[in-house]
Amino acid sequence: MYQVDLNSDLGEAYGPYSMGMDKEIISLISSANIACGWHGGDPMVMDETVKECRDKAVAVGAHPGFPDLMGFGRRNMAVTPAEAKAYAIYQLGALQAFAKSHGIPVQHFKPHGALYNMAARDPKLAAALAQAVYEVDREIIFLGLANSCMLTAARECGLAVASEVFADRAYNADGTLLARSLPGAMIHDTDLCISRVIRMVKENKVKAITGEDLTLKPDSICVHGDNIQAVELIKAIREAFAAQGIEVNNLKKIVK
Amino acid sequence: MYQVDLNSDLGEAYGPYSMGMDKEIISLISSANIACGWHGGDPMVMDETVKECRDKAVAVGAHPGFPDLMGFGRRNMAVTPAEAKAYAIYQLGALQAFAKSHGIPVQHFKPHGALYNMAARDPKLAAALAQAVYEVDREIIFLGLANSCMLTAARECGLAVASEVFADRAYNADGTLLARSLPGAMIHDTDLCISRVIRMVKENKVKAITGEDLTLKPDSICVHGDNIQAVELIKAIREAFAAQGIEVNNLKKIVK
Amino acid sequence: MYQVDLNSDLGEAYGPYSMGMDKEIISLISSANIACGWHGGDPMVMDETVKECRDKAVAVGAHPGFPDLMGFGRRNMAVTPAEAKAYAIYQLGALQAFAKSHGIPVQHFKPHGALYNMAARDPKLAAALAQAVYEVDREIIFLGLANSCMLTAARECGLAVASEVFADRAYNADGTLLARSLPGAMIHDTDLCISRVIRMVKENKVKAITGEDLTLKPDSICVHGDNIQAVELIKAIREAFAAQGIEVNNLKKIVK
Amino acid sequence: MYQVDLNSDLGEAYGPYSMGMDKEIISLISSANIACGWHGGDPMVMDETVKECRDKAVAVGAHPGFPDLMGFGRRNMAVTPAEAKAYAIYQLGALQAFAKSHGIPVQHFKPHGALYNMAARDPKLAAALAQAVYEVDREIIFLGLANSCMLTAARECGLAVASEVFADRAYNADGTLLARSLPGAMIHDTDLCISRVIRMVKENKVKAITGEDLTLKPDSICVHGDNIQAVELIKAIREAFAAQGIEVNNLKKIVK
Repeated sequence: MYQVDLNSDLGEAYGPYSMGMDKEIISLISSANIACGWHGGDPMVMDETVKECRDKAVAVGAHPGFPDLMGFGRRNMAVTPAEAKAYAIYQLGALQAFAKSHGIPVQHFKPHGALYNMAARDPKLAAALAQAVYEVDREIIFLGLANSCMLTAARECGLAVASEVFADRAYNADGTLLARSLPGAMIHDTDLCISRVIRMVKENKVKAITGEDLTLKPDSICVHGDNIQAVELIKAIREAFAAQGIEVNNLKKIVK
Repeated sequence: MYQVDLNSDLGEAYGPYSMGMDKEIISLISSANIACGWHGGDPMVMDETVKECRDKAVAVGAHPGFPDLMGFGRRNMAVTPAEAKAYAIYQLGALQAFAKSHGIPVQHFKPHGALYNMAARDPKLAAALAQAVYEVDREIIFLGLANSCMLTAARECGLAVASEVFADRAYNADGTLLARSLPGAMIHDTDLCISRVIRMVKENKVKAITGEDLTLKPDSICVHGDNIQAVELIKAIREAFAAQGIEVNNLKKIVK
Repeated sequence: MYQVDLNSDLGEAYGPYSMGMDKEIISLISSANIACGWHGGDPMVMDETVKECRDKAVAVGAHPGFPDLMGFGRRNMAVTPAEAKAYAIYQLGALQAFAKSHGIPVQHFKPHGALYNMAARDPKLAAALAQAVYEVDREIIFLGLANSCMLTAARECGLAVASEVFADRAYNADGTLLARSLPGAMIHDTDLCISRVIRMVKENKVKAITGEDLTLKPDSICVHGDNIQAVELIKAIREAFAAQGIEVNNLKKIVK
Repeated sequence: MYQVDLNSDLGEAYGPYSMGMDKEIISLISSANIACGWHGGDPMVMDETVKECRDKAVAVGAHPGFPDLMGFGRRNMAVTPAEAKAYAIYQLGALQAFAKSHGIPVQHFKPHGALYNMAARDPKLAAALAQAVYEVDREIIFLGLANSCMLTAARECGLAVASEVFADRAYNADGTLLARSLPGAMIHDTDLCISRVIRMVKENKVKAITGEDLTLKPDSICVHGDNIQAVELIKAIREAFAAQGIEVNNLKKIVK
């Protein structure tokens, strides 16, 4: 039997500002990465999002980002590992409190945006984030880019890790994602997205932009809820999974 | 035997900005109210302050404030009880994570500045804060103004409460503090401060600004570390306590 | 001949977050109140919004608010008049710089949200805001609630003032707006909105919620672009104005 | 006759937080770089600082930084040139408004911290900042690192430029500053600092860390007011200048 987690970023609204189609995708995913008030999200939004996830039996994870609401946490910032660690502890703790108030655990931790991308390339930053999680709650699963130093660092720390893949992004031969600014970075063909994720799940392989096959283990597939097309893609993926005998389960059931 | 807790606000520095004589007073108090990043404090400061408290065996508490760093959380803001509750959960959770990372529990919760003053007068706001604490961790002691609706609300919620008094502030006949803007609000005479707190501890009485005696139970005395005079006052209080057989203990030992 | 200004809040998006139907309403109004980065808006949004207004020949005004992005500047904050003055100078200056960079003047100044409501009731706060505008540029028109102390304060300061009315809000007998939280505060009947603003423009009268007539001079009517219904209301108002011989002009042409 | 400007960063306090010895150094310098509320400073501080400068006849300049109060604007952020331009316009405008309210012009513009360092190496970023200043007020002098692309960009834009040197920093052979993290980056010997700046002023030369002479034109010397030693260094420099016949004048008098 094959199984995989579907994760998506939720709770990125802020004060009077809405963002994303949370209501539509919450019933389509198995794990939610919840913004923790820095790059997006605020306490009222966190509270409501955690409650919604609990009601829909979607597992919640902390999704900490840089202190850059204006840039949505997508701009690299030259923080030290010690700063990144403290920022991760802070935001993870905030989410844990909402989880406790709604009677559920925090299942996983996934850095957001530029923090994710930087930690996927910088072992010291990755180790700082892993250490943050470990010190706060060693039962939390570290969700990071497949084959990246984030997973290595988290494993060395003693954490369970989950390997994340992307349905609609092109990969370089070394397993990193092709930068969004480059042509071909985003895969817009739904059928191609689906055939790629099915192959990832069944064969642990995906074709890199340069043509060769790449090995990667997909514990979780990142999906988006930015617009109606994105939501349709998730639905199409789920239908294809059902037809192929691939079960969607959250990380706690997948990661041993 | 008499015993009382000495609490003080710590960890109010922010980024490049220092504040308060944390190093000097940490060894003079038994409980620290640690700023949680909104009215003051930041993750690096929280981390360092919690570590210092642990090393000096000072109990830590969450000290959440309004989202108003520029006004240091001292300006009233018209938040709803639901907003106040969410803000309290967020900040309390953040501090808990640092406490966990340093292997200690969060002992207490004390709102900061305008949030404290508003909650001391508004039962709905007080109830919202108490509910926040209860949902996150019902072992946490709610520290609030003696005789105020904060303590009533926290008790009704099922929390242990600690009654706070002030060494250097004048009281109205109804048990509220005389507003800082009024003459006589601050008591600058060290001997008078000391005789007042000793009478509070031994007799549970203090003279109001209008002359009559007021009954109040001092589980904890709030002291300040803003300047060298404030630190000297704490030392003088501790010496007087030693001479009078009054023990300084943190809230966990005092509140049943 | 009758003439009136139509003003609306624009440029309230922030970073990744959109807000309001700026594109749709910009060609329907004569004056834009542009958020200055505190309760909403950011430098990129301000730049784009000022440019759009210039291209569409819509006059721009500064729309400063409280430092409360999370609450969208709609929550009362206990700021001092000196603080309010400094906040107004700061935000007005920021907008002026974008106006200069696009070769247009700042026509007016209108406080946002809670700052507007508080200044409409507090003569000292109103005077502080008026003084701010006067010290920065005495050619700027102060746009405030009809019959309120904002207009008195601005006039006493030496500023030209414009009296603002609302198409879709109920008035108390004393000329203040019925609080949004009370029943009947919002008028949802388009025909009623239109007949009220036409009577305001032609007779300077409107019926208060309590039944009596109220006298008020409408230099400018506040309209909204929150949703498609709001945009339709503006269109309906403009059509009715055209039929009634009421010209829409911006404040510089109306206020002498 | 030799003349040079002495510039220093002022007005970096924020809300309840003080920073720097503004009172002590304001009478020792000729030009003040005033923080504009993003990396430091707030409207109340800006107001007070501009007033102080006017009273002491010190010229004021805008000192804009990254939106990173927690990092004091010292951490690199991956902003686009368009973002940097908008951020510069915003902050420059805010300072201009305070200058107008106190009846003085903004003399110069000097980016802060990481924005300064990045613009000294990135011609596109430098051009964006120069364009910001030019569009807002082409009379403002651009103050930037001697020999850097900031000065080239500002000159090409049509702005007057002022070339900045450092008394207490070591230079690389290419004219850039030796990174603070490297040994020898800071020069702690007062006599050496003084002899270096005198040689810079009289001969337009300074010895690089690698031994060779570097040519640079010192329109302005950056001095600091962080602590009492820094203030003493400024006094010593001024005494040496007086003895050497070097006049201290602000940029308006030096830059043609």
